[in-house]
Amino acid sequence: MPAATQTDTLPFDLVRPELEKVEASIRDQVRAFDPAVEPYVSYVCNSAGKRIRPALAILVGGTLGGVSADHRKIGMIVELIHMATLVHDDIIDGAATRRMIPTAHAKWGSGLAVLLGDALFSHALALATEFDDITICRKVGNASREVCEGEIVQTQRRFDLTLSRKDYFRIIEMKTGALFAAATGISAALSGADAGTERRLHDYGMRLGTVYQIYDDCLDLVGTEDAVGKTLRTDLEKGKLTLPILNLLESATSTQRTKLHQRILNQEPLDLPVLLGIAEYEGAVEAAIDTAQDMLTECRDDLAGLPDNEHRAALLQITRFVGGLLETCRR
Amino acid sequence: MPAATQTDTLPFDLVRPELEKVEASIRDQVRAFDPAVEPYVSYVCNSAGKRIRPALAILVGGTLGGVSADHRKIGMIVELIHMATLVHDDIIDGAATRRMIPTAHAKWGSGLAVLLGDALFSHALALATEFDDITICRKVGNASREVCEGEIVQTQRRFDLTLSRKDYFRIIEMKTGALFAAATGISAALSGADAGTERRLHDYGMRLGTVYQIYDDCLDLVGTEDAVGKTLRTDLEKGKLTLPILNLLESATSTQRTKLHQRILNQEPLDLPVLLGIAEYEGAVEAAIDTAQDMLTECRDDLAGLPDNEHRAALLQITRFVGGLLETCRR
Repeated sequence: MPAATQTDTLPFDLVRPELEKVEASIRDQVRAFDPAVEPYVSYVCNSAGKRIRPALAILVGGTLGGVSADHRKIGMIVELIHMATLVHDDIIDGAATRRMIPTAHAKWGSGLAVLLGDALFSHALALATEFDDITICRKVGNASREVCEGEIVQTQRRFDLTLSRKDYFRIIEMKTGALFAAATGISAALSGADAGTERRLHDYGMRLGTVYQIYDDCLDLVGTEDAVGKTLRTDLEKGKLTLPILNLLESATSTQRTKLHQRILNQEPLDLPVLLGIAEYEGAVEAAIDTAQDMLTECRDDLAGLPDNEHRAALLQITRFVGGLLETCRR
Repeated sequence: MPAATQTDTLPFDLVRPELEKVEASIRDQVRAFDPAVEPYVSYVCNSAGKRIRPALAILVGGTLGGVSADHRKIGMIVELIHMATLVHDDIIDGAATRRMIPTAHAKWGSGLAVLLGDALFSHALALATEFDDITICRKVGNASREVCEGEIVQTQRRFDLTLSRKDYFRIIEMKTGALFAAATGISAALSGADAGTERRLHDYGMRLGTVYQIYDDCLDLVGTEDAVGKTLRTDLEKGKLTLPILNLLESATSTQRTKLHQRILNQEPLDLPVLLGIAEYEGAVEAAIDTAQDMLTECRDDLAGLPDNEHRAALLQITRFVGGLLETCRR
């Protein structure tokens, strides 16, 4: 199958040496911490994710003429901020495992996890001030602010029936889109891209991150913990009204909706059997997937004016990979 | 009594209008948050502390030729970071009240308090990127990193009998000194001070913050909750080996020390009656106060070469005020 239509792999082989350099510099950061802190930071840094944000930063650099140390650095900074938010998210969600291993919160308690997230976060922002260009630093600062605000709005609006689809998108754009957009947009700025190109690459990241969050929200409903490697069904229990849930509320009959609303207002967990019994469940997930696939088409359009090279092809391939992930959520 | 020897008031009347502007700009920041987040941020911002860090930033500006918007701004940024750390500290310490009112953690749970601290922290760092000079931004970033690392080292080394006096000072310099030093040192930089003056004002803040932390550590042992307005005796329960406790361990007889060590190694709370029964308790607090008073003398020396004006007099007066606070901890 030609690379352009593959959906089962992330096209990271192209930038593997660059990603390995980022991985090494993340390990170097660990050594920058106090010896007393090192093992905790190391635990979080080694529970390696897919490093999709650094890969995006590097691929944007490659697309726009060449990958520099600055591209790797912004990738690393964004990844450190991402790791900090995961550590704090796991406290809030009371999640026991992530990527098949115990969360920092489960392992050492919420106190240490609060501080560990703070340490990673402040370290990342201090690294951002090492760029000579203050506008880069400013963009990192603003993205971090958005992520934090997105998280807090999401938490504050749990069990809130007035949450609209627009509100949902605003929340996930802030909490997930902003860091993807920082990786791609700031990387474009570091390549000296013109404002229009930077904007389109920022938008590509924002849409891709948003779609990825929709996938995550669908997965929380339909995934299996063994396959996914983290605690699932937390959204329902915690009253997070995600896109599939909003679809469900919209597609339900008036009687069904009243029942659902009652459970939400009583802050009763919206567990799966309850949902399956009340309303058109599968269609709600399907509709969320369709929305996300449309956004992936827009993502590909964002890349239209860029130089036609293998790095740009990889950015396109990522949208197909995420599209493939989304399809696995269909029954 | 001439102002120079007063110990019962903070000399903030001199900069009252400037402090009120900082207070107003803190309120403005609250409005910059999402409406869903505003009430939480507002609660924390309105549970007003003494605003000693903004006052220091303003007084340094005044000493070095005039207070500008930049001095007020760095004061506000440092205060926001300080508030963020308080919100997170209260989670870690499980503290129920601060400044006579319920903590964010006690009021809304640890999840929201984690996010609220993150939002304040990221907002402060984003504001720091608004300075045109990246070195200012860099100093704020580094101070934040130090604060977070100080907190985590402190938490990690609870119940750790190998903690030396040097380790203790390093911890409190990071967790409390760094933000005082940022307020005074960065303020000097914003006034265009030469490197030597900036260094001395940085050191003044570092020492003053360190002394203030020693006072806080003594107060946790000897204060009364009604008078102080926050949960006390948490250091002993949590195994934090503060300066008076380290003095106590040092002054104890070998038999007494063995008993104390046993309790610490078993992670049993070092409650007050136990301490009073085992070792020379009052002397340990006295010795900590003496150490802090010596540091205040050094603080005053740091100010020696500065222009002799009323703002400098106020910086001197602050050291006397803190000295007076320390003396209230003697029996």
